[in-house]
Amino acid sequence: MVTKAQNTQLVQTGPGTPMGSLFRRYWIPALLSEELREPDGPPVRVKLLSENLLAFRDTQGRVALIDEFCAHRRVSLWFGRIEMDGIRCPYHGWKYDFRGQCTEVPSEPAGSHFSKSVKLTSYPCVERGGVVWTYMGPPELQPAFPEFEWAMVPDSHRYVCKRIQENNYLQAMEGGIDSSHVSFLHSGELHTDPLHKGTKGAQYQQDTAPKLEVMESDGGLVIGARRRADEGHSYWRVTQWIMPWYTMIPPYGDHALHGHAWVPMDDENCYAWSMTHHPSRALKPEELEAMQNGQGIYAELIPGTYRTVANKRNDYLIDREAQKKGTLYSGVRGIAMQDASLQESMGPIVDRSLERLAATDIAIVRARRRLLAAAGNLGTDAPLPGLDPATHRVRSASFVLPEDVPLEQVLKDATAKTDTEHTSI
Amino acid sequence: MVTKAQNTQLVQTGPGTPMGSLFRRYWIPALLSEELREPDGPPVRVKLLSENLLAFRDTQGRVALIDEFCAHRRVSLWFGRIEMDGIRCPYHGWKYDFRGQCTEVPSEPAGSHFSKSVKLTSYPCVERGGVVWTYMGPPELQPAFPEFEWAMVPDSHRYVCKRIQENNYLQAMEGGIDSSHVSFLHSGELHTDPLHKGTKGAQYQQDTAPKLEVMESDGGLVIGARRRADEGHSYWRVTQWIMPWYTMIPPYGDHALHGHAWVPMDDENCYAWSMTHHPSRALKPEELEAMQNGQGIYAELIPGTYRTVANKRNDYLIDREAQKKGTLYSGVRGIAMQDASLQESMGPIVDRSLERLAATDIAIVRARRRLLAAAGNLGTDAPLPGLDPATHRVRSASFVLPEDVPLEQVLKDATAKTDTEHTSI
Amino acid sequence: MVTKAQNTQLVQTGPGTPMGSLFRRYWIPALLSEELREPDGPPVRVKLLSENLLAFRDTQGRVALIDEFCAHRRVSLWFGRIEMDGIRCPYHGWKYDFRGQCTEVPSEPAGSHFSKSVKLTSYPCVERGGVVWTYMGPPELQPAFPEFEWAMVPDSHRYVCKRIQENNYLQAMEGGIDSSHVSFLHSGELHTDPLHKGTKGAQYQQDTAPKLEVMESDGGLVIGARRRADEGHSYWRVTQWIMPWYTMIPPYGDHALHGHAWVPMDDENCYAWSMTHHPSRALKPEELEAMQNGQGIYAELIPGTYRTVANKRNDYLIDREAQKKGTLYSGVRGIAMQDASLQESMGPIVDRSLERLAATDIAIVRARRRLLAAAGNLGTDAPLPGLDPATHRVRSASFVLPEDVPLEQVLKDATAKTDTEHTSI
Repeated sequence: MVTKAQNTQLVQTGPGTPMGSLFRRYWIPALLSEELREPDGPPVRVKLLSENLLAFRDTQGRVALIDEFCAHRRVSLWFGRIEMDGIRCPYHGWKYDFRGQCTEVPSEPAGSHFSKSVKLTSYPCVERGGVVWTYMGPPELQPAFPEFEWAMVPDSHRYVCKRIQENNYLQAMEGGIDSSHVSFLHSGELHTDPLHKGTKGAQYQQDTAPKLEVMESDGGLVIGARRRADEGHSYWRVTQWIMPWYTMIPPYGDHALHGHAWVPMDDENCYAWSMTHHPSRALKPEELEAMQNGQGIYAELIPGTYRTVANKRNDYLIDREAQKKGTLYSGVRGIAMQDASLQESMGPIVDRSLERLAATDIAIVRARRRLLAAAGNLGTDAPLPGLDPATHRVRSASFVLPEDVPLEQVLKDATAKTDTEHTSI
Repeated sequence: MVTKAQNTQLVQTGPGTPMGSLFRRYWIPALLSEELREPDGPPVRVKLLSENLLAFRDTQGRVALIDEFCAHRRVSLWFGRIEMDGIRCPYHGWKYDFRGQCTEVPSEPAGSHFSKSVKLTSYPCVERGGVVWTYMGPPELQPAFPEFEWAMVPDSHRYVCKRIQENNYLQAMEGGIDSSHVSFLHSGELHTDPLHKGTKGAQYQQDTAPKLEVMESDGGLVIGARRRADEGHSYWRVTQWIMPWYTMIPPYGDHALHGHAWVPMDDENCYAWSMTHHPSRALKPEELEAMQNGQGIYAELIPGTYRTVANKRNDYLIDREAQKKGTLYSGVRGIAMQDASLQESMGPIVDRSLERLAATDIAIVRARRRLLAAAGNLGTDAPLPGLDPATHRVRSASFVLPEDVPLEQVLKDATAKTDTEHTSI
Repeated sequence: MVTKAQNTQLVQTGPGTPMGSLFRRYWIPALLSEELREPDGPPVRVKLLSENLLAFRDTQGRVALIDEFCAHRRVSLWFGRIEMDGIRCPYHGWKYDFRGQCTEVPSEPAGSHFSKSVKLTSYPCVERGGVVWTYMGPPELQPAFPEFEWAMVPDSHRYVCKRIQENNYLQAMEGGIDSSHVSFLHSGELHTDPLHKGTKGAQYQQDTAPKLEVMESDGGLVIGARRRADEGHSYWRVTQWIMPWYTMIPPYGDHALHGHAWVPMDDENCYAWSMTHHPSRALKPEELEAMQNGQGIYAELIPGTYRTVANKRNDYLIDREAQKKGTLYSGVRGIAMQDASLQESMGPIVDRSLERLAATDIAIVRARRRLLAAAGNLGTDAPLPGLDPATHRVRSASFVLPEDVPLEQVLKDATAKTDTEHTSI
């Protein structure tokens, strides 16, 4: 269904590529605010859309995201000194402010204006929801700030983390879009994980043949997966895909809501962001502790890094006994690494021209199509889905409804944000 | 003698290459039977001729060798669940039988025939001599099963293992064909190894200027190396090369017989198989223990892998003192790693157009020529050497004969399999 | 200022490249004499200008530098046996003398002249100053031996070591030419290192805006950096760059003199040589101990290797606290690793077409120009700077002089070698 040429177009996001140009029109989750914990703390390397960048928080608390390399002789400013309102290259002392403007070239004579002519690439940043967001596109096209619910609730209601995944963003994101694999890959969790165990939803998800229906939304896609529930009823799980790379998972019961962002570092690596929030209450200490320990949709990280303890170099610590017993369906522990292990096993960039898709892949097919169409529309008047913050104010949810409730009504309910308790089961 | 173009043709064995097409006409040692110890045990990754494959033993004990990647979305089935009579992809539950036929796509409706249309590449397998053999060529050309003596004796009479060597198969195989390097590289063993020490053969092999004579056999080549023995006598070591990659080492006295298979994983790595058998008695516990410990032609393996403890990353644990003293001629311990260290030191693919060959390389020259000729004959009526199992039923051997015994008589004796005690000294 | 094409020309030094042809006209520091401590000791791998070579010291103490690979089947002679007056390939016993001449092919019949026709590439070597030098160019153009002062003083007056740096030689050498970065990158040392601390020079070097003046010398460049000193005086640091890759650092007071050679291994790695000598006295035990411990311009090495303990895989053990406090300007410990960390951070080969140069880069600009010009002059009658040993007999030095001393007089003083005490402050 996807040609080799289309696949190339979908996966490449460096400067000047069609998809890279599209993604540069959106605000991008760049790093965690806590990575720049305090003013004048150490700088952090960030790689986005194949660009090597450096982030730091200046004396006034402003976040800078600039070219990693000094304009002068191209050494990495990661070794730079964070000084009053800027970073100084340790090689010859050239200093830059948070906008990448060179403010001092010490070797120049007193009255020199040389430094004024030197400016690094820099991208505007905004902090919301514990995340530093950046915009890498044309300044005149900068959109309004993102308004995802998880980013707008009080800090106490939210937990966010990221991990580095060693494959192209798209095969990771397709996992987030794909509502059908839960019944298999994560089925061990349906029986054992406190977030699922004992819920009606977990029970209904044992139906391995969901019917998928997909509707275009202003933000991207609304994806409904219908499974058999009790007599005369259907169990709907309705998932949101917001352009360009956000996916939202329907919760179970009153549990917190989960979402992901799948952000390209380069064409063979991505940041897998995970966000958890509850719209109406603070997260509980035991919920936070579980997430910090790498449970649920989170993964255990190698301390001091955003790389995972289980990874392809150790076969994800696969446990064949647990796989045999069925407590871990694939033998890999944790939802995050279950997904990551399979997605990385496809190789850094899967060749989609070799795929053999089925009916339950309809959402993935539609998402690819929408990405290609949006990239094709660049430079026209066509609006870009997901650019308007109004499109962010949606939720995923699950419902049990009589079989005869029309689909459109289900989707309409799901896409309308409510301030009341969410209704998943 | 070999042009760059001929070298390329000799070393490349991926799908569609001349040598790859030739090798796909033969049964190929794929993995050890013991790697698939029991029905429904974990699957094993196998790489052959640049193809990524997966092996498993199904509920009925049948061995499957199929494409490593699920037809659906191309994740590795190494993470798959071994279930009743098949393997199930953990992503969406597609199930395949031992022939790679998809038997179940759970997301499809009850009456769907979709799964019938999905089939993975798979290769037929047969088990013989503790080895799973596969055939990767056109089904209509599948030859009879291999009948090497080591594969046909009772299990008690045999020991087989493999190790991964990090270079092209050909430079490894050429070491197995080369009867002259023993007097140098392995000369320490001639004095110290229990298999050689004190034998007449070891003594005679100190003649470093063997005369080589090569005769084409139906299977490949018979290679005679003649050295000086006692007054008026010659010491012959007669080695077999059976197409496409089998070599057999003449034994010393009543010791067990050794052989190798040099099987391409891809163009820069190969499986170095070692086989030991005695035609008329069970191997002794001390013989087995020595081989399991990586002595003789075997190597010490990193537990849980087929990679060697001594390897290029640790300079093969070279012992310069032992090299100086001559107890280890090259300073590397063990016949296997002595060969592997030098062969890997050539780089992954040696450029044979730079070689400077001598008279003792005649067997190597002839083997290359025979490989190229056989590849050139594909599609014609010319028979492929080594395809007929009758050509497998040969032995290597050593003899002391009067100087005036004609060579042809020696070779005739050597190529005739006898059921009596073997006659090496 | 440098185009991509010029950059390519500057950085590539393999056989047949313009810069490679230029460099092959000079004597090249190949390895430390102590790496070949005694006759018939183990051979050592050496990589120079993208050629894989092997060094050994033969029975008579002569140094051989030959092709790493046996002419016969191309195995690495690093596994070779050092025997009487030569090295023997462990595969088939071919023996080579220190000139790469094959002297024995044991498999050949007694009267054979075959070995006479086999010769490995080999390069003449000379030992001076604890260093084995080689000449890789056309024999008829071999220049006189190098006569750098450090190489000519008694052994007791000198310390030499090397380390492997993982980037192109040029960006390393440019650091050695660059007199202005000391005021920044190494400024911590100006306050704390025993070699600098408390000297007038260290005090004056806090002027971060040196004026640079560059004069062509017969050897390469003389580079004068003038800083403010006490009332009405200037502090001059005069650095030598001798073609093709030698740099000399002005000392502080009566301290020993330091120099470097930046020698390409291949286009992405180089040997960073450091040489220290005192022209008129033996080095003191505490000086030697400090250097052996990797202090000053030396680096701590991984035992048994010339690779550094601090390296890019451990972020050079950066100490952000020390960086913050200013005791380590970039947070990296030691002058050598301060330079190496930044130079490696540019990537293996920096793209100079992206640079933004300033007035203090004039020496670097001139050096590049001189290298390109010299490569362009190959094959003409134009003399090559630095080829005549007379051009080696120069020193770097520092002076405090009245502001009105004309520059030419300063340089004239600096370039004249004196046998009296050196005069740096």
